[in-house]
Amino acid sequence: MKENPLDLLMNPRSIAVVGAGNNPMKMGTMQALNILKDGFQGAFYPIHPREKEVLGCRAYPSVSDLPDPPDLAMLIVPTASAVELLEEFGRLGTPRAIIISAGFKETGEEGAQLEKKLQETARKYGIRFLGPNCMGVLNSQVSLNMTVIRMADGPGMLGMATQSGTYVTQTLAYLRKKGIRFSKAVSVGNEADLNIVDALEYLGQDEQTRAIGLYIEGIREGRRFIEAAQKITPHKPVLAQYVGGSAAGARAGRSHTGSMAGPDYLYEGVFKQAGIIRVHSIEDIYEHGWTLAAQPLPRGKRVGVVTNSGGPGTAIAHTCNEGGMEVPPFSEGLQERIREHLPPQGSSTNPVDLTFHLDVRALSTGIPELIMQSGEVDAVALHGAMSRGFMKEIYPHLRELLGGVPFEELFERFRQDLSDTVSLPFKYDIPLVVSSFFEDDNYAEAYRKNNVPVFDVPEKAARALLALYRYKTIREREKTLPPELPVPSSEAERLIEEALARGQCSLDEYDSKRVLAAYGIPLAPERRVQALEEAVEAAEEMGFPVVLKGCSPDIAHKSERGLIKLGLKNRSEVQGAYFEIAEAAGEEIPVLVSEMVRGERELLAGVTRFPGFGPCVLFGLGGVFTEALGDFTIRAAPLSRSEAEEMLADVRGRALLEGFRGLPPADREELARILQNLGALSLLHPRVAEIDLNPIILSGSRPVVVDALVVLEREAEAGGGRT
Amino acid sequence: MKENPLDLLMNPRSIAVVGAGNNPMKMGTMQALNILKDGFQGAFYPIHPREKEVLGCRAYPSVSDLPDPPDLAMLIVPTASAVELLEEFGRLGTPRAIIISAGFKETGEEGAQLEKKLQETARKYGIRFLGPNCMGVLNSQVSLNMTVIRMADGPGMLGMATQSGTYVTQTLAYLRKKGIRFSKAVSVGNEADLNIVDALEYLGQDEQTRAIGLYIEGIREGRRFIEAAQKITPHKPVLAQYVGGSAAGARAGRSHTGSMAGPDYLYEGVFKQAGIIRVHSIEDIYEHGWTLAAQPLPRGKRVGVVTNSGGPGTAIAHTCNEGGMEVPPFSEGLQERIREHLPPQGSSTNPVDLTFHLDVRALSTGIPELIMQSGEVDAVALHGAMSRGFMKEIYPHLRELLGGVPFEELFERFRQDLSDTVSLPFKYDIPLVVSSFFEDDNYAEAYRKNNVPVFDVPEKAARALLALYRYKTIREREKTLPPELPVPSSEAERLIEEALARGQCSLDEYDSKRVLAAYGIPLAPERRVQALEEAVEAAEEMGFPVVLKGCSPDIAHKSERGLIKLGLKNRSEVQGAYFEIAEAAGEEIPVLVSEMVRGERELLAGVTRFPGFGPCVLFGLGGVFTEALGDFTIRAAPLSRSEAEEMLADVRGRALLEGFRGLPPADREELARILQNLGALSLLHPRVAEIDLNPIILSGSRPVVVDALVVLEREAEAGGGRT
Repeated sequence: MKENPLDLLMNPRSIAVVGAGNNPMKMGTMQALNILKDGFQGAFYPIHPREKEVLGCRAYPSVSDLPDPPDLAMLIVPTASAVELLEEFGRLGTPRAIIISAGFKETGEEGAQLEKKLQETARKYGIRFLGPNCMGVLNSQVSLNMTVIRMADGPGMLGMATQSGTYVTQTLAYLRKKGIRFSKAVSVGNEADLNIVDALEYLGQDEQTRAIGLYIEGIREGRRFIEAAQKITPHKPVLAQYVGGSAAGARAGRSHTGSMAGPDYLYEGVFKQAGIIRVHSIEDIYEHGWTLAAQPLPRGKRVGVVTNSGGPGTAIAHTCNEGGMEVPPFSEGLQERIREHLPPQGSSTNPVDLTFHLDVRALSTGIPELIMQSGEVDAVALHGAMSRGFMKEIYPHLRELLGGVPFEELFERFRQDLSDTVSLPFKYDIPLVVSSFFEDDNYAEAYRKNNVPVFDVPEKAARALLALYRYKTIREREKTLPPELPVPSSEAERLIEEALARGQCSLDEYDSKRVLAAYGIPLAPERRVQALEEAVEAAEEMGFPVVLKGCSPDIAHKSERGLIKLGLKNRSEVQGAYFEIAEAAGEEIPVLVSEMVRGERELLAGVTRFPGFGPCVLFGLGGVFTEALGDFTIRAAPLSRSEAEEMLADVRGRALLEGFRGLPPADREELARILQNLGALSLLHPRVAEIDLNPIILSGSRPVVVDALVVLEREAEAGGGRT
Repeated sequence: MKENPLDLLMNPRSIAVVGAGNNPMKMGTMQALNILKDGFQGAFYPIHPREKEVLGCRAYPSVSDLPDPPDLAMLIVPTASAVELLEEFGRLGTPRAIIISAGFKETGEEGAQLEKKLQETARKYGIRFLGPNCMGVLNSQVSLNMTVIRMADGPGMLGMATQSGTYVTQTLAYLRKKGIRFSKAVSVGNEADLNIVDALEYLGQDEQTRAIGLYIEGIREGRRFIEAAQKITPHKPVLAQYVGGSAAGARAGRSHTGSMAGPDYLYEGVFKQAGIIRVHSIEDIYEHGWTLAAQPLPRGKRVGVVTNSGGPGTAIAHTCNEGGMEVPPFSEGLQERIREHLPPQGSSTNPVDLTFHLDVRALSTGIPELIMQSGEVDAVALHGAMSRGFMKEIYPHLRELLGGVPFEELFERFRQDLSDTVSLPFKYDIPLVVSSFFEDDNYAEAYRKNNVPVFDVPEKAARALLALYRYKTIREREKTLPPELPVPSSEAERLIEEALARGQCSLDEYDSKRVLAAYGIPLAPERRVQALEEAVEAAEEMGFPVVLKGCSPDIAHKSERGLIKLGLKNRSEVQGAYFEIAEAAGEEIPVLVSEMVRGERELLAGVTRFPGFGPCVLFGLGGVFTEALGDFTIRAAPLSRSEAEEMLADVRGRALLEGFRGLPPADREELARILQNLGALSLLHPRVAEIDLNPIILSGSRPVVVDALVVLEREAEAGGGRT
């Protein structure tokens, strides 16, 4: 295991805090109080210019007065003093810091300058730090809570790394109510030093953490993020919400943490590539994350549903079905055993419906256990287990009739030991999710305490099962490593260098194709000619029909400008086309003579670079699919074979690649190879800014690139991506 | 206003209940208690064989002992006794009933027979009834609650009609916590008499009801449902969840209320046609329904976001953006006024971020009011207003520091009058939605009490705004009435009758097209010929190239069987094709000679019948779009012009109909006319079971039907739809 700078930061033997005092309404005081009161066992050094004691601990007038260098310095101070204080801790030899103070990059140029100074100071002393503009961390394993709000009870299993501090502070009471407990949580703030990738790696290695949630406004180290996640997701689920991909989201994120966002489709593709489950609300991070952390994985897609009410049962069944799981009818034998627990109007098929019936024991335990034992399901969803919550609702009207017996006394008569109920999923290693409209109920409470998630509406229970099932498929997906990059082609590099030297922004079509050919991309046979006779000769050699295209680096939209002539069937048509092209171009330009590739299916592929992610490979079904439907997918280079194949399966119109309407299935291996090679090419030639292969025609099953464009980056850059 | 049988049922002057007693754990007793204790002012007659008094009211030994016929009879009795009791109430002259008892159609054939007897008995005496297998009704206007759980406080604004009783009982406590209050709620159960359409019509006319939520497992009177909803949705929002469209949902629904489900796409289309907002969870029915009932509508799509935390602000902005609303940056002037309320590290653009800052007054009131006054937004979303909830969280750790002051005393020091805060949306007629992680907070409480919806996570607040915006667009959509049906074509009817007389299941292509032609559907010029010379003559008359097709009612998949010959350019090609068709067919069959229609875009249209909905018109972009992407849409006939036009806009590849890739825009008027005429034709000829126009080729902008099939219904049926 790699050492992670967060190891020490999350487990300091001693913490010095600047900005805490005895004024209870100050943020620093609240944070210090949480450190002290939530159970941290290490040393705690408040630094305060005037107070002798802070929160009952001896206070030190300045950093230099500290007895020995603390492992961790925490700064909750005015923006202007942060740099100076970090310097002092650096001189003392403190290796880690958390800078809570805001007012840096997120406020504009001046703040950005200050943030740079923080970075310089930290680098000078080898300090690794979180923030600025963050809310601190939580480590439930050592009862360390540096946030503003007190921690949930006991150690948890969900790890959280977030670019919004709120999601590890304001939500703590919300989470406690749901029984969701963090193992470790990290608010990364502006990420001037340690960032969300460091936090992800840390949580990935942390044994206590069973699932990881990420709130993301923008990732700087994209490629590193993917690699880190790819190491984690085969054995630990990761969920992420990304909100930076819309105009408003990007602007809001920038003003929040100054983070650099990318388009939504980039993150959509990257999450898939990394095996990350994407969610669209913080609720799903928490609830699906907790379900993944707390429940066993299903071994298949069969769900058993048990309920005391048809509506929720139907809604769960429908939601599971829509999301790709099944709710199969139970065998007659199982139904017979279930019917022993049912009233006559109940239903024993799947969903099992007890109808309005107060035998909660059968609903919560007897029937679910029968189902789990049967071997007929891989997961169970249960709606309606309720006792105290329901009684409390009806009690006020019943009190009189019950002779005025106090509620608690009444309830005691009905109270049951629920230990076997709540242990079912762990006993049978089959996941169980529960929904109940009664939040304040002894069943709900017992489930929550015992790591069985309880949802407030039935559809959410179903969606949590779908998240479990989704992760099962992620775990099972084929994993291949990206192959070694090939030897760079010196011809390709020469063509690029020469074009740059001539001041070109892109290669012309002919040279673009020569670069692609150097990496084994399949092209239509083609010759570049400079004169009419040459064109005719080339066409005759090639065999009719042929295509003629005007070729020049300055020419875009060849088709609209009349520079492409298709299906030329003989000498005279070639001659006519040659003159028409010269006329349309306004001068005699080089012309490409190509074989006419026929096929009913068009595809496209390409490369674009994104800051932090380097070159990313794009694949789509060409023509209307891409233009009218936006049906394309993207992954960061380099691509392994399985990643490239996943791209082919990741477009909505994927049926087109199969034996559609009597056409032969596409050569998927060759298609995957094209995508892999596009990625390799872009990594090997950093001056390639964009590649556009459009269309690639499926000639029978064989993909052939018919038109291609390589766009160049005018300014050189190091390595494989702009970071 | 039409009289609705539910008027009296929801407002009875007297109720007789059979099945209530003095045993508090019986369902009937609980329901009777709610009637008595939740404030119903009418007469209440319990019927009980032994007890003299039930719940303090004089009990009657049998129905015939009642002093006068009650307006409403409520039966919570064993299945077997329901019919007899209904008969007794009928004899007495009781006009309305609610049959809570289960065990009818939902349990199988025997139950279905009993249910039929209920219907016969009711019909005999003119009783209109709800159920069986339902949970009763709620009418908050007259404090009448017949369900099992006590009612929320005070009259509400959300009307609910549901095929699952749970959603008006088990959820009452859940709703109370959220501040959501029903105006009226109806559990329709098995719908043996009154059904969800009656309930919808009733709620549509009810003045107290400001928005309507529907939970649906299957609709029997589909066409009536659409018409009822179309009358309501232009002035009152309707939301619906449909769960019967998946295999598991359909089975679960059938075993729940015996309801007949249809495919998901049918309801998707029908909801759009009716102006109903579709939701996918009961939470959204309640929360979006309540927001629509309680808040003003936005006048445009501009959202202002105010928060004390960047993450939730960014998430709200992103969610609004993705859903089609905007979060525009504020003008410099407005930002300047906002900055007066902000700490230095805050952000005054949109979203406004106060950062962690305890000036809740600025967050909740000062800044939102500035924004509402500015004219720069149409809606406001607010995250993080919190006082008591937050203080309660930090208090335990602070207590000591605060000199042990009790929490309530501490809180009183900070308590503020929130009346101006909560009245903002109504003062400015601009919707306000709030999210807060602190459910138990004085702000949340005050908002809820004053009909400002509070959500537990920020994304939900954003999605509720999107529901408001969605309804605004529904209100504004163009409404046209379906035109009068044309005079039925006697030729079409003759062709259909003759084919049926010959025992055909469908018309051959030629006759199919003659039927279509009779309703003005544009077809490619075509002749049916019986001999080679005729074929050649027809082709020469028409002009080459032509198409030859074998024509017989028994022939499907003409293309795969080699019965279609395209692009025949001269006499000899026609001759060759003619022989090839005869050979492929195994005999000389009639042949169609058609003009070769050219175009790069294929569409399809058709008709299918669904039980209860009658003929439904389908439209899609043909070929791969429909087959590989399932990109089609459906509406029930007859279609108004605007409904037909909405179908054209309701396919994902709609850009194809516009000036795509230099092609001329499709003639939308003609396309809409085709869809309208398909609907009219099917209504006029009930023996037409299905129509399939595939492909319709866009020749330039003009749609031309190239292949067509009319499938016939062997058994006659009355009217326009199977019901």
